[in-house]
Amino acid sequence: MNQNVVLLVEDEALILLDLQTSLEEAGFAVVCAKNAEDAITHFDRDPTGVKALVTDIRLGSGASGWEIGRHARQAMPSIPVIYVSGDSASDWHAQGVPGSVMIQKPFVLVQIITALSTLLNEQPALPPLDNA
Amino acid sequence: MNQNVVLLVEDEALILLDLQTSLEEAGFAVVCAKNAEDAITHFDRDPTGVKALVTDIRLGSGASGWEIGRHARQAMPSIPVIYVSGDSASDWHAQGVPGSVMIQKPFVLVQIITALSTLLNEQPALPPLDNA
Amino acid sequence: MNQNVVLLVEDEALILLDLQTSLEEAGFAVVCAKNAEDAITHFDRDPTGVKALVTDIRLGSGASGWEIGRHARQAMPSIPVIYVSGDSASDWHAQGVPGSVMIQKPFVLVQIITALSTLLNEQPALPPLDNA
Amino acid sequence: MNQNVVLLVEDEALILLDLQTSLEEAGFAVVCAKNAEDAITHFDRDPTGVKALVTDIRLGSGASGWEIGRHARQAMPSIPVIYVSGDSASDWHAQGVPGSVMIQKPFVLVQIITALSTLLNEQPALPPLDNA
Amino acid sequence: MNQNVVLLVEDEALILLDLQTSLEEAGFAVVCAKNAEDAITHFDRDPTGVKALVTDIRLGSGASGWEIGRHARQAMPSIPVIYVSGDSASDWHAQGVPGSVMIQKPFVLVQIITALSTLLNEQPALPPLDNA
Amino acid sequence: MNQNVVLLVEDEALILLDLQTSLEEAGFAVVCAKNAEDAITHFDRDPTGVKALVTDIRLGSGASGWEIGRHARQAMPSIPVIYVSGDSASDWHAQGVPGSVMIQKPFVLVQIITALSTLLNEQPALPPLDNA
Repeated sequence: MNQNVVLLVEDEALILLDLQTSLEEAGFAVVCAKNAEDAITHFDRDPTGVKALVTDIRLGSGASGWEIGRHARQAMPSIPVIYVSGDSASDWHAQGVPGSVMIQKPFVLVQIITALSTLLNEQPALPPLDNA
Repeated sequence: MNQNVVLLVEDEALILLDLQTSLEEAGFAVVCAKNAEDAITHFDRDPTGVKALVTDIRLGSGASGWEIGRHARQAMPSIPVIYVSGDSASDWHAQGVPGSVMIQKPFVLVQIITALSTLLNEQPALPPLDNA
Repeated sequence: MNQNVVLLVEDEALILLDLQTSLEEAGFAVVCAKNAEDAITHFDRDPTGVKALVTDIRLGSGASGWEIGRHARQAMPSIPVIYVSGDSASDWHAQGVPGSVMIQKPFVLVQIITALSTLLNEQPALPPLDNA
Repeated sequence: MNQNVVLLVEDEALILLDLQTSLEEAGFAVVCAKNAEDAITHFDRDPTGVKALVTDIRLGSGASGWEIGRHARQAMPSIPVIYVSGDSASDWHAQGVPGSVMIQKPFVLVQIITALSTLLNEQPALPPLDNA
Repeated sequence: MNQNVVLLVEDEALILLDLQTSLEEAGFAVVCAKNAEDAITHFDRDPTGVKALVTDIRLGSGASGWEIGRHARQAMPSIPVIYVSGDSASDWHAQGVPGSVMIQKPFVLVQIITALSTLLNEQPALPPLDNA
Repeated sequence: MNQNVVLLVEDEALILLDLQTSLEEAGFAVVCAKNAEDAITHFDRDPTGVKALVTDIRLGSGASGWEIGRHARQAMPSIPVIYVSGDSASDWHAQGVPGSVMIQKPFVLVQIITALSTLLNEQPALPPLDNA
């Protein structure tokens, strides 16, 4: 019953907990990953069960949030993607996927909730997908 | 003093209560209707007193949410309209009114609040109406 | 080879000719219909071969442009729809389909070309359809 | 019969002629003004007869294009406003009106046509005005 | 450490307190001003430390919220600006800055939070200001 | 005098000529490249002199249009990017840059002109890059 979760990727444990708590209090089901490998493994297990992606950019020594975003969109072209970052925000114009939201640190948690709600609300406006 | 209410239409009592509670906690005044007939009767009594419409699509044996949306827009061309549905979301492209938001079940309550706030915030950007 | 045409519906012969000429000079292939019945017959023969719909609202004694718009969207949820009208423009908020463009008479022909180009350019931004 | 014209304001005669020719070739009716005083005089004579405003910013010793924009919007809240400028473009964020377009010199004439068509096409999406 | 605050301008003490409490509960740091003079003094001390402006329109005998908006945008072209007003909302089309949000009284506090979050989320979409 | 050109990248000579002619007739100055290497060499010589990028996706054996888009945005975060493609359009959601336009073949030349004009008109809406 892990369907329709928000996949949350962040390598700093405290920020991850903050984000997870905030999203869950707002009513979202959350699956956490601490690096790109775990995130992609979870995503690939059931791409249609992931409702949205919220990801940090720098994730230790592995792949970055930019790569997770592209990976998710390749399988699910209309999945909402939200990037959260401090120093990588300026790369968003070159590395982000179309229609994504870049939230710059320091941010207020309600900004994530609003971005997520807004992108999810735009989803049904897209025509039905053959693989969703 | 029922001015400026959100008209909420839903035939399942539990979902209706959930939505009403959530909207009221967010600060909105809510008037509930369980079918299209009640919704339209309330609306027609004072169209300018209804600030926004949030409606389910399937409403038992009577008219559907699509018809309530068109009815409300005929009298109030710029009223925010939010549809909430499970299986009827794919009909939105053909049956929804322009500028409306379609929220697909299962959804998180904050999505309704965000959609409502966003559409209400866009209202003053419209020129003053002669009949409002 | 009638694939990827703009379906143009207008009951006044002179306006129809003007629109057709203007669209063809801009490079679009055009199929004309003088009433809703002909338009829907053409559309139903090959819905995926119609790239966009440009329709007048009042079309003699038959169905109106609003109905053609809904009919086309039911089969092709993301097809661009452009309405052209004089006195029916104010009904667009209640009768138009989401994401459509309403062009009010008197208009300049380049407005149609711009609307059509803009809506077609937004198409690939939508995820691939299973039936297109 | 000067209804539904584009009011074009530019103090450099050659640029004015270029713009006027380009707009007329695209099918628009144009009324020209060489300074803010003439522009406002024309506008005030029949505000509902002016379909859109295209204005340079610096206009000799009189009022600027920013002031014409605000003046026009005070009477006609939804009138399309397009500013054309070289060195004043950076002031647009502080001095422009909401929903206006700023076109920076050097520009290509088709940019003006596209901006004008796009803003005019968005007009019927606004609810009917009491004074239009 | 007053960096990244929301500058809140409102001359009615009770409304100011309501807004301040609501913004702080949502996680924003707030600096309050009761008139335009105080607002501009605070802003000019450290323009880059102000993250967003939320302002009433009528502010006693001094300058109005329209003037504060233009002042802030002149120094910080992309700062989010939110106006809150009862009777001045219809002037927004002529007096507001581009991309601003006008929230009409009576409003629900969550509308302010949503507008603020949405505008802040759009910020990183703008190109970096220092290295280009 | 190569300032403010549109950089056009296409490996099929006939399509390149068509696009170039169409853009020049519309008034744009064009620099052509037949592969990614040439495109990037031209771009890097004077990034601020390139006004916009129009690129095919598949470009023979070298890098693709997706890479040219990212390269251009890394140096010029707000440069308009338009992709033109037949079979690669569905990858746009994963490989395109934010705010870009994907035009699917077969297309009509006016779609390119409209996309280019629209993106250029949105440019001054971005804050100035040098004085902030």
